[in-house]
Amino acid sequence: MKLQTFPGYTFTDGGVCAAQGFKANGVCCGLKHDALAEDSVSEQNLAANNALPEEDDQPKKNDLAMILADCPCNTAAVYTSNKVKGAPILVTKEHLKNGKAQAVIVNSVNANTCNADGVEKATRMCELAAEGLGLDAEDIVVASTGVIGQILPIEPIQAAIPALVEGLSYEGNEEAVHAIMTTDTCEKQIAVKFRIGKKTVTLGGMLKGSGMIHPNMATTLTFLTTDCAISSEMLQQALSDVVRVTLNRVSVDGDQSTNDMVCLMANGLAGNSEIKTESADYAAFRGALYAIMLNLARMCAADGEGATKLIECVVSEAPSEQVAETIAKSVIESSLFKAAMYGADANWGRIACAMGYSDCEYDVNKVNVDLASEKGRISVAKNGCGVPFSEELAKKILLEDEVQVLISLGDGESAAAAWGCDLTYDYVKINGDYRS
Amino acid sequence: MKLQTFPGYTFTDGGVCAAQGFKANGVCCGLKHDALAEDSVSEQNLAANNALPEEDDQPKKNDLAMILADCPCNTAAVYTSNKVKGAPILVTKEHLKNGKAQAVIVNSVNANTCNADGVEKATRMCELAAEGLGLDAEDIVVASTGVIGQILPIEPIQAAIPALVEGLSYEGNEEAVHAIMTTDTCEKQIAVKFRIGKKTVTLGGMLKGSGMIHPNMATTLTFLTTDCAISSEMLQQALSDVVRVTLNRVSVDGDQSTNDMVCLMANGLAGNSEIKTESADYAAFRGALYAIMLNLARMCAADGEGATKLIECVVSEAPSEQVAETIAKSVIESSLFKAAMYGADANWGRIACAMGYSDCEYDVNKVNVDLASEKGRISVAKNGCGVPFSEELAKKILLEDEVQVLISLGDGESAAAAWGCDLTYDYVKINGDYRS
Repeated sequence: MKLQTFPGYTFTDGGVCAAQGFKANGVCCGLKHDALAEDSVSEQNLAANNALPEEDDQPKKNDLAMILADCPCNTAAVYTSNKVKGAPILVTKEHLKNGKAQAVIVNSVNANTCNADGVEKATRMCELAAEGLGLDAEDIVVASTGVIGQILPIEPIQAAIPALVEGLSYEGNEEAVHAIMTTDTCEKQIAVKFRIGKKTVTLGGMLKGSGMIHPNMATTLTFLTTDCAISSEMLQQALSDVVRVTLNRVSVDGDQSTNDMVCLMANGLAGNSEIKTESADYAAFRGALYAIMLNLARMCAADGEGATKLIECVVSEAPSEQVAETIAKSVIESSLFKAAMYGADANWGRIACAMGYSDCEYDVNKVNVDLASEKGRISVAKNGCGVPFSEELAKKILLEDEVQVLISLGDGESAAAAWGCDLTYDYVKINGDYRS
Repeated sequence: MKLQTFPGYTFTDGGVCAAQGFKANGVCCGLKHDALAEDSVSEQNLAANNALPEEDDQPKKNDLAMILADCPCNTAAVYTSNKVKGAPILVTKEHLKNGKAQAVIVNSVNANTCNADGVEKATRMCELAAEGLGLDAEDIVVASTGVIGQILPIEPIQAAIPALVEGLSYEGNEEAVHAIMTTDTCEKQIAVKFRIGKKTVTLGGMLKGSGMIHPNMATTLTFLTTDCAISSEMLQQALSDVVRVTLNRVSVDGDQSTNDMVCLMANGLAGNSEIKTESADYAAFRGALYAIMLNLARMCAADGEGATKLIECVVSEAPSEQVAETIAKSVIESSLFKAAMYGADANWGRIACAMGYSDCEYDVNKVNVDLASEKGRISVAKNGCGVPFSEELAKKILLEDEVQVLISLGDGESAAAAWGCDLTYDYVKINGDYRS
């Protein structure tokens, strides 16, 4: 996927370790699926450890990650709006009430959601991390992603803490990003450098996309780190504002996770004068956050479960940004549209249909629709009606890895984009066949 | 699919011809796909008729249907709420302003939607039908289903009218139902007899389900006929009321068609005293309509594109019917849940997740979830948390053709059901691979 670039912002390596003063690590602690009760898992683990060699025949994937800042950070977060919330969400919310944190612990495989002892286990994860790091448990952010409704065994996590802490390093972002990956087919991390006054500031992060080893939902976890000096309030404002126009406009399958979390830590080590208002410095920081989040959002959509292509829907000439966003999301979320994109079928009636059932008002007789990619751009509808087009060129355009649907409403000056992917056999396979 | 039965209502054959005084017919007039302009279609047709024998090598499928009542009927209808409306919807709405109609003409293959000349063509279909039948064009209901944005060629329809009219018969429901079928894998028609006072009244109908030869959307057309004597107002009230709790609670893929229409004609020939108020007679009629529409809704869901099973989600102990309906629909519409059902995977976290992001309030800690089918019933979650269950029995239950998800909110006495199907490879194939 091509990165979207912005003047004044330079991409750099390092992900969550790109900014000064952030270490990370990831290990395989051996969390497992299909636990009906904690006891049975523990027994299985013991049996496996004692007798069964198969474990070692399979490549081990990291399932537990940690991020540690050199000093306490102003920290902001946004959470899923699903009423069913993972226990880690509840615990992290509590810990971030003061807008401060210094470390993150996160596991994949098990979501620790819909479990009677969920909060207890999430709290215990924080305590274990805090003990290992010599911090207070209240300064730990905890997150989990994986199967809902299976008891989280704490023993494997407890046993792995020493190695996890021991291995923390300023180049540990690779180990960490692999620990949060599940059915992701590629790692998703990015960082950017920019100037605030005479200081160079760095912002980086990692995201896990839509998929789980035991598939469950379009679960997204995002961890961002920066050495920018910025108040907790402005950090939260920037994060909420940018998530609204990036990750909140991504849909892989319309299902919203119980465990979604985006967390942004700022340690202030860049030495810029602390951002406390909506100043030019704030605008520079927000721009960096947008550059990071936009690209992470696009990576997330492009690597949606089973996806073969990234689809961007841009709605322009809209009476309001809200209308543009609603229509763009409605198109991106349509199963019929997504299946047509998989087949590279320029069946634009599906676009018109999905626009029409979106919950907003527009004049159907002023709508123009174009399809575009690196192979070219064609008009398929004007003023609400179909126009003749070359099926051959349309096919060529739609067979590309990145496809744009460009909709003009002819009724204003607002615009918005949304990102998604096609609906494929593999989506059904990943999400239906796992236990078959 | 097993029919849901109701005391006092006896199922009978005949579909839209079951009630006294309704004839029907269906023919193949030769509508085609991939018309970029009307001229090219006409030329193709001419070429095919003049020179190409392939046409006759393929089984011809009816694509044009007619229903005729012996006398003018009080007629009610409900239409898609999609802002992009097929031209036939606009014309039929106009014709039914007086609550009266005597005949229906309907084609498949082409939706006559998003075309500059759509209203002109839909009007012309009514005129042609009226000329053939000796009626006024205003007494004709017109409907179309098929590809959006391709010009509807009127010549094949015009040429077929004499044969269509000539072949009208009181046993013509089979020909008619086949003309509205598209990717439907089975015909969907049903009729019921019941008593109003000393009179036997009959109500019947046919529905085309979610799928099109050139796939486009979950297009549903339903035509209902009855010999009941009932005022246009009470007919409309009954229809709107029953559609709300039946067809409006079906989702195959969440996409709402531009051409959906349910039309109900009452010719009064049963001789009952005309229903003009919410009397016991009205309740008997509404009961019949519910029996018909509930079964058509279930048939529609069970034969969703690519579906291997019917899924019914029943939400009970809800604080209101609205909450129950919202949650039931959210579960039925979840792609992840639907894919899990295809895989017969009792991954109930997907149910909890889809409930949680539905737009209504409930106490997540009071939720119980059971899965059921003819093979048995198991509890998978209680008080919002998972409970141990037999994966083997769960698999057996979910491998059945009809599966129930039974959710109790533990917070009231209201209930609602919704119907859907699983998400399969074939859904993607039908909707993505057509032109590939």
